[in-house]
Amino acid sequence: MTFLKGSLLVLGYFFVAHSFKNLFGFLGKRKFIKSNELLHEEWARYSAFYKYQPIDLVRKYFGEKIGLYFAWLGVYTQLLIPASIVGIIVFGYGVATVDTDIPSLEMCDERLNFTMCPLCDGACDFWRLNTACGTARASHLFDNPATVFFSIFMSLWAVLFLEHWKRRQISLSFSWDLTGIEEDEVNNESQNAEMYTSAKHTHTHTPSFPTKLTWKDRLPGYFINVSSILFMFGLTFSAVFGVIIYRITVSALMAMSPDPETKSNVRVTVTATAVIINLVVILILDEIYGAVALWLTELEIPKTETTFEERLILKAFLLKFMNAYAPIFYVAFFKGRFAGRPGNYVYVFNDYRMEECAPGGCLIELCIQLSIIMLGKQLIQNNIFEIGIPKLKKLVRAIKDKGTAQKESEDERPPQQWNRDYDLAPFEGLTPEYMEMIIQFGFVSLFVASFPLAPVFALLNNVIEIRLDAKKFVTELRRPVAIRAKDIGIWYNILSGMGKFSVIINAFVISFTSDFIPRLVYQYIYSQTGTMHGFIDHTLSYFNVSNFKSGTVCNLYIVFPFRYKDYREPPWSAEAYQFSKQYWCVLAARLAFVILFQNLVMFLSLVVAWVIPDVPKTIVEQLKREKKLLVEVFLQEEKDKFQLIHSLFSKDPPRHQRHLYGSPLPLISYDLV
Amino acid sequence: MTFLKGSLLVLGYFFVAHSFKNLFGFLGKRKFIKSNELLHEEWARYSAFYKYQPIDLVRKYFGEKIGLYFAWLGVYTQLLIPASIVGIIVFGYGVATVDTDIPSLEMCDERLNFTMCPLCDGACDFWRLNTACGTARASHLFDNPATVFFSIFMSLWAVLFLEHWKRRQISLSFSWDLTGIEEDEVNNESQNAEMYTSAKHTHTHTPSFPTKLTWKDRLPGYFINVSSILFMFGLTFSAVFGVIIYRITVSALMAMSPDPETKSNVRVTVTATAVIINLVVILILDEIYGAVALWLTELEIPKTETTFEERLILKAFLLKFMNAYAPIFYVAFFKGRFAGRPGNYVYVFNDYRMEECAPGGCLIELCIQLSIIMLGKQLIQNNIFEIGIPKLKKLVRAIKDKGTAQKESEDERPPQQWNRDYDLAPFEGLTPEYMEMIIQFGFVSLFVASFPLAPVFALLNNVIEIRLDAKKFVTELRRPVAIRAKDIGIWYNILSGMGKFSVIINAFVISFTSDFIPRLVYQYIYSQTGTMHGFIDHTLSYFNVSNFKSGTVCNLYIVFPFRYKDYREPPWSAEAYQFSKQYWCVLAARLAFVILFQNLVMFLSLVVAWVIPDVPKTIVEQLKREKKLLVEVFLQEEKDKFQLIHSLFSKDPPRHQRHLYGSPLPLISYDLV
Repeated sequence: MTFLKGSLLVLGYFFVAHSFKNLFGFLGKRKFIKSNELLHEEWARYSAFYKYQPIDLVRKYFGEKIGLYFAWLGVYTQLLIPASIVGIIVFGYGVATVDTDIPSLEMCDERLNFTMCPLCDGACDFWRLNTACGTARASHLFDNPATVFFSIFMSLWAVLFLEHWKRRQISLSFSWDLTGIEEDEVNNESQNAEMYTSAKHTHTHTPSFPTKLTWKDRLPGYFINVSSILFMFGLTFSAVFGVIIYRITVSALMAMSPDPETKSNVRVTVTATAVIINLVVILILDEIYGAVALWLTELEIPKTETTFEERLILKAFLLKFMNAYAPIFYVAFFKGRFAGRPGNYVYVFNDYRMEECAPGGCLIELCIQLSIIMLGKQLIQNNIFEIGIPKLKKLVRAIKDKGTAQKESEDERPPQQWNRDYDLAPFEGLTPEYMEMIIQFGFVSLFVASFPLAPVFALLNNVIEIRLDAKKFVTELRRPVAIRAKDIGIWYNILSGMGKFSVIINAFVISFTSDFIPRLVYQYIYSQTGTMHGFIDHTLSYFNVSNFKSGTVCNLYIVFPFRYKDYREPPWSAEAYQFSKQYWCVLAARLAFVILFQNLVMFLSLVVAWVIPDVPKTIVEQLKREKKLLVEVFLQEEKDKFQLIHSLFSKDPPRHQRHLYGSPLPLISYDLV
Repeated sequence: MTFLKGSLLVLGYFFVAHSFKNLFGFLGKRKFIKSNELLHEEWARYSAFYKYQPIDLVRKYFGEKIGLYFAWLGVYTQLLIPASIVGIIVFGYGVATVDTDIPSLEMCDERLNFTMCPLCDGACDFWRLNTACGTARASHLFDNPATVFFSIFMSLWAVLFLEHWKRRQISLSFSWDLTGIEEDEVNNESQNAEMYTSAKHTHTHTPSFPTKLTWKDRLPGYFINVSSILFMFGLTFSAVFGVIIYRITVSALMAMSPDPETKSNVRVTVTATAVIINLVVILILDEIYGAVALWLTELEIPKTETTFEERLILKAFLLKFMNAYAPIFYVAFFKGRFAGRPGNYVYVFNDYRMEECAPGGCLIELCIQLSIIMLGKQLIQNNIFEIGIPKLKKLVRAIKDKGTAQKESEDERPPQQWNRDYDLAPFEGLTPEYMEMIIQFGFVSLFVASFPLAPVFALLNNVIEIRLDAKKFVTELRRPVAIRAKDIGIWYNILSGMGKFSVIINAFVISFTSDFIPRLVYQYIYSQTGTMHGFIDHTLSYFNVSNFKSGTVCNLYIVFPFRYKDYREPPWSAEAYQFSKQYWCVLAARLAFVILFQNLVMFLSLVVAWVIPDVPKTIVEQLKREKKLLVEVFLQEEKDKFQLIHSLFSKDPPRHQRHLYGSPLPLISYDLV
């Protein structure tokens, strides 16, 4: 009978207005009221991290929307496993080859002593390249051919993830019986739900206005929107710039210190501290931006709840994305590119010299930046914002209720379930949960070329994250009103957008931030032996100390020319300090690589998306079967109806009585309505 | 009642197996048997070219599949109008600015006489640059900044076209009531249809095999497939290469002629003749490839008719695409890039020198190539293959039937309609019609950067094409069995694939084939005055005649250095004849432009596709209304049923009799089945 039931259910929602369904759902939930214990046992415990999630139970208890969130989180975490395995292998390759890597060996070699131009004016002295040995060795860990392969792999991984999720979503919406529901139905429901949950901004965005708003009414709202978003961007950029200034000054100060140990690590330490400042700024601004996005969206007065949510998400995403990635973008693509050259440096506030990149490439700094921001963001958000704050709020509420406590204590009844439920924090919606994951997805996809371990950390975080969220939903929050949803909505678009964006970003990171292309060019064009020997020498240009502006350098007892990391003509050439032929050659190679990489990856992703069918085979067959059964049932019913009518005309009570009892017609019609 | 009818129809096909529908359709066609006169009047006449097509009538008479083809052709032609208007404007800009264009003025300037290296060995003499004045002026018509804008415009146009068609298709499939039909239904029908139409290869690809084929059975088929497709590619390339050889030799011969007029036009004339040869080769191979593709697909023994068609189309497209575009790709991207340099030329068959590009750039040759192939293909295909051949076949059949004619003449009955219909040629399927249009779409989108007039010619062709096909279908061919289809199938994917491909192709044409980037680089980096003056001088390198291998040049009375079009170090530099810094700088600029162009256009296309909703608003609302009505009708029916049953238990004949006559139930149920 199960197939009949299934088919009749399908038959049901094709016709019956949705209210009936809600009723059933409601009854269903009542029946499973005790399932929260079960959820707590099987799902909402850290000790259950290795188990699959009981998604159907989650959906039964929390409704489709939250069920989909956890299903999505599960798929994402699951797919992070292969990614992190490959990531570890790639990192292992870096570790294994660090001692055989010629460029870093050359940098650490005492014998070929390159005397480099000072890192800062006045205080700083000329320095030996081999003091930056550590940086060079470290940067090789992330800047090696395996990384190129890995970033291609990760771009395809992102496509694979989206395709896989599409399939999962379809099979879920089939088994959860969502295939039929329309947008508008979802809207209405979530609107009603919204009524209960957050009454605080319903008055603004439910269409409580009798008249339709004209563009004149909306114009100021949009104007404020655009202007304040631009202002927020400005805020973000200025924060980044402030940190840059900090970095410049501190590195100048540290470079003055006599201790060579400090000197050699100046870059790493400065970067680290600067990044921590960045992190704090990001975390603070994140909270502000969340509130701003909400406020701005309310100004727009969207019609339905769905549009409200979508616009809110888009704004919040835009702001938080900028906020989280602006410093990383700076390090990856701008740092050290506008530093100028010895004797003609670029100055900010005409006494701070723009910072340069490490001799080992900016990649190591980018890597530090990424790892600290990613890990810090996750740890702090998980611990403080998701555990600490709620507990604090609870405490506050408890204290507030102290006053009313006396009254309660007077009558002896123990506090009822509903009292205890009411004491819990209200449900704030899924947006923050998704947002956190999306930003993390950015770390995993956008800059993976510079930090192959990102998937590993993401995986570790998510294994905890799932149980953390589960715990929170089951024990910490009031049970949210179940909201129907047939997909994860705009988040999917954001994800696929990031996937596309990551391709070009990775291409630029590999070709411009890392030293991959210069190495190739040297090996195949300039190297006499066809090996990497002499690469370092090739990347350093000559500079004649006499060309320094007087006073910028302390001790001029040295006379032989100095080196700096750039492709420029030597002082003795006709066009001294102009970009050399090598510079243009390498630039061309880098750009060619970008084109090649981008188009190759895009083509491969198209192939992957084309190979994987959106709808699983099993579902297709099942749908066909159900359709067939529907037709049969329907025709059967029609036949019975005809016989019935027929029998009415031919006066023969017993026959049509018999027939009536035999016919499935009444049952079916009850099932339907 | 129309809304009720609509809703009941929808209700109908949700349940009723399709056969019922076919019956209706069949009756419908019978009813409109006379509509072919109407079609002939309103549609299948050249004089009706300005009218909208009566698509619904076409669909009624020929079925959905052919209806969709003509609808698609209509949309395509309609959208070609704005494209061709913009194209004409762009071309006009070129014409208007040709006299103020400094580079072409400099090339035609008698005073600055650049003596160029000979175009061929032995026979050819040194020549003056200003003899190529005509080429330079002509190439400016297509190689100007407006072209860049135009190719961006056309890429967006392609996206717009696809989106627009998607909308049209949806509204058609709604008004033609195709929204419900499944793939498999379509298959079966088209399969049955195929049974009638082309019985000749049904035996191969209908699953007449009792057992399922294992990969072992299929392996040889696939092997033959791959190998013969590769062989065909080889054939195409060898044809192209043959034409290259022809070009090289003939241009060498013509260059020997004393007449200066011939000399100056050598390139154009040679190109023209060569292209005509190309054209003939293409037309012949096209026919061969069509047959080969069919044969290969039959080897694969696909399961359903749809898969058969798809595979056939893909193969045919692959082969014909290669065939049509191989020579164009050669001219656009390879010609003149492997010619070597004076004193060190590249030789094929060690006595033919590889050909170079004109001083005005390869673009003009590409343009000639495109225009001749495109126009020639269209004219010849339309006139010979679509009008001539059918008439010929008809004649042949007529002659064949001579023998039987006597017998007919004996009995006096005039030939009946079915005799006359039988005399018509059989319907060969839509594939060739689509293929012709798709290849044309390639000319409009892929290389539009080099030939802005392509849309105009396409438009002119299609206005005729529509009526030509209509005429053919109505009068020349037997009436094909109506085939249902809910979209144009794989053709859509091919179109969107070409759209994506065209972006990168146009980017490369602009940056590498045209002189757009070198001009920009000169103006903003190398030019002292910031104007284009001296550009020609800048693009020409110096060559010392004494570096010629002895015997390659006839008269060595001249001693001063000569020029050739390339960025290389002069003879007196340390690394003589190596690529100069300018070369690498320009190359970098070109590659940067490709990246910029591609990503900009891709972003804009995403925006366009996102702004235009796939389903028109009207359809959405209509679907909602119908759904509501369905629910009402259904509930009403259920209510009546309950009353009916109820009335049976409560013995009161007159009441339920009365009720029975009043109830819409029987009518509805008849409507349903």
